Amino acid sequence: MNNLIYLDNAATTKPYGFAIEKASIYNDELFYNASSVHHNAIKCSKSLQDAKNSLLKYFGNNFDVIFTSCGSESDNMAINSYLKRGNAVTTMGEHSAVFSPFNELKNSGYDARFAKLNEDGSVNIENLLSLVDKNTVFVSVVHVNNETGAINDINLIASLCKKINPRLVFHSDGVQAFMKIPYALSNDIDLYSLSAHKINGLKGVGAIIKNKKLKTLKPLILGGGQENGLRSGTENLFGIKVFEYAFLEHFENLKENFNHVKSLKERFLSKLDKSLVKLISSENCSPYIVNFSAVGLKGEVLLHKLESHNIIVGTGSACSSKNRHSRVLKSIGYPEKVLDGVLRVSFSSQTTTEEVDYAVEKINLCISELSNMVNL
Amino acid sequence: MNNLIYLDNAATTKPYGFAIEKASIYNDELFYNASSVHHNAIKCSKSLQDAKNSLLKYFGNNFDVIFTSCGSESDNMAINSYLKRGNAVTTMGEHSAVFSPFNELKNSGYDARFAKLNEDGSVNIENLLSLVDKNTVFVSVVHVNNETGAINDINLIASLCKKINPRLVFHSDGVQAFMKIPYALSNDIDLYSLSAHKINGLKGVGAIIKNKKLKTLKPLILGGGQENGLRSGTENLFGIKVFEYAFLEHFENLKENFNHVKSLKERFLSKLDKSLVKLISSENCSPYIVNFSAVGLKGEVLLHKLESHNIIVGTGSACSSKNRHSRVLKSIGYPEKVLDGVLRVSFSSQTTTEEVDYAVEKINLCISELSNMVNL
Repeated sequence: MNNLIYLDNAATTKPYGFAIEKASIYNDELFYNASSVHHNAIKCSKSLQDAKNSLLKYFGNNFDVIFTSCGSESDNMAINSYLKRGNAVTTMGEHSAVFSPFNELKNSGYDARFAKLNEDGSVNIENLLSLVDKNTVFVSVVHVNNETGAINDINLIASLCKKINPRLVFHSDGVQAFMKIPYALSNDIDLYSLSAHKINGLKGVGAIIKNKKLKTLKPLILGGGQENGLRSGTENLFGIKVFEYAFLEHFENLKENFNHVKSLKERFLSKLDKSLVKLISSENCSPYIVNFSAVGLKGEVLLHKLESHNIIVGTGSACSSKNRHSRVLKSIGYPEKVLDGVLRVSFSSQTTTEEVDYAVEKINLCISELSNMVNL
Repeated sequence: MNNLIYLDNAATTKPYGFAIEKASIYNDELFYNASSVHHNAIKCSKSLQDAKNSLLKYFGNNFDVIFTSCGSESDNMAINSYLKRGNAVTTMGEHSAVFSPFNELKNSGYDARFAKLNEDGSVNIENLLSLVDKNTVFVSVVHVNNETGAINDINLIASLCKKINPRLVFHSDGVQAFMKIPYALSNDIDLYSLSAHKINGLKGVGAIIKNKKLKTLKPLILGGGQENGLRSGTENLFGIKVFEYAFLEHFENLKENFNHVKSLKERFLSKLDKSLVKLISSENCSPYIVNFSAVGLKGEVLLHKLESHNIIVGTGSACSSKNRHSRVLKSIGYPEKVLDGVLRVSFSSQTTTEEVDYAVEKINLCISELSNMVNL
């Protein structure tokens, strides 16, 4: 194969060319400031509203959309709104955009609590609930873990948390779930973070889905009062429209894509030489992500070896690539030998069975070669 | 004229098509997550560094670049880092991305101080210095006011402030100055905010220029630790490269563009019927912005009348379009009749003399017609 086989789609996806082309009118003609009052600016403002309405086709009309610059901003905005009084609960399996602000607040003396994980990276619900009490103001649980693909049943978890304290605000980072696994948010979910570039949109665009009944969200960025005062800064209409068009394409094909990727994962797992690896992702994980460890080897060495076969995979989260070991997997208790050898293979709806066949063959080969070298 | 004459360039500029085309490789091929560790991701990471190095050709090597999602984010990040202890000083002429966070902090009990303005919207330096003392931790002075175009000599002001308290951090919002008026930042400037879409880049990209000697900048958005831990979120490389290419084009033609726009402003002012308007921008203002009032008329009515002649102008700041009167001009003390009639005409380097001639003729005509209607 001459072309690159890209299996790091959890880090970012290739933007849809058709979506960029269709949205290019917002750079070429309707490039106006959507907050201006002239006629063409009002057209821009309406197009922005159309993009929100498109997203609400999926989330339903008891939610609002606030556009942000990325999933990390959405997460920080949610957290920043509430972590002042009482206590707040999250999990050890959060993306660093939730974990870091929680941790920073904990280090400054705030009562931030972290629930333990199960072996596949999903949250231990019993442990989480033991941390929630009448003084808990905020709970944040990732929907799909970005390293293992573990799915948390956030509707169930939110409902159980609110039984303990109905006044708490429930947030979920949905970046790896949105348009990958089919779901409907229950009315117990107050805030939900999205990122455009994980679904073939552009980098630099995110959103926070806000339950209309929630009254207390605070802006992280103040200024001109865009997004109903919740997110100032000139609206990135071009990026938002690319997001909308990518979303609509995914929305139309959500179940079909899910089934396709599910069969890719099954095919991949059936061919992966289990004698060479320890599987970390479980059967219940999102089919878009397969995490495993070539125990005793170095994941990064394997990654570069696979590159020489034109295959791109990841080692855990791209966002934590500077750390030697995955914080999430470490917290589960995996030993160093497992942590060293972690690889993350992540599919997209455009990944083909041929690519998977080729990739898994080379993965088996590279691990086997590297093992032999290490054991010499 | 059939085409629209766009004279609202202070609100936003038309993105450079050539810059988008040149940067499109970062969507089509090098769309990777710049924080991943594979070979192509490292190429992305290097391209990001190249963009920083390009900007530093202008700012010099005693500065660093941190990319953000917009000028408003840059302003909020600067302010958020310091306004906890002591007091902080800004001006009544700030963009709302500085004014609003200052005002919010003042409302929460913090000692935030606002310096008065001169008639053209520049800060009254004497008044500003009277507010700075040994306990001042932060001073923010806009470089070019976005409504009147008034230029503040920030190098002088920073040096005078630091004579009173050498430890204070000096920030300036440079969004309307950058690549419009030629300048060099002195070493007294600690932080400086930029926006890409004001210089023909895309919306959704900004930067903060940080003096290397400044040690204490805090991130507004925590997470994966991108931008040396100062701004988390997957790097928007496509948007950043468009910004770089637009910048390089401006940088090469900065003085030529300045002289061209200066002659446009002079031509505009020489033809504007002074008997019909009160000029708010002074001779010393940026040539890119002319602010005046058709006293006794409504600016918004005029704006829409001009639209019928295919001319787009602004009424003060696009970001404050929901407010009836300009906060900045109101603070200077202009009476209601003047505030009502405010129009902002803002040029770009691509504005032609023919466009200016046509626009000023129609502006005179519309004001005259509207005056006659009002006086009937």
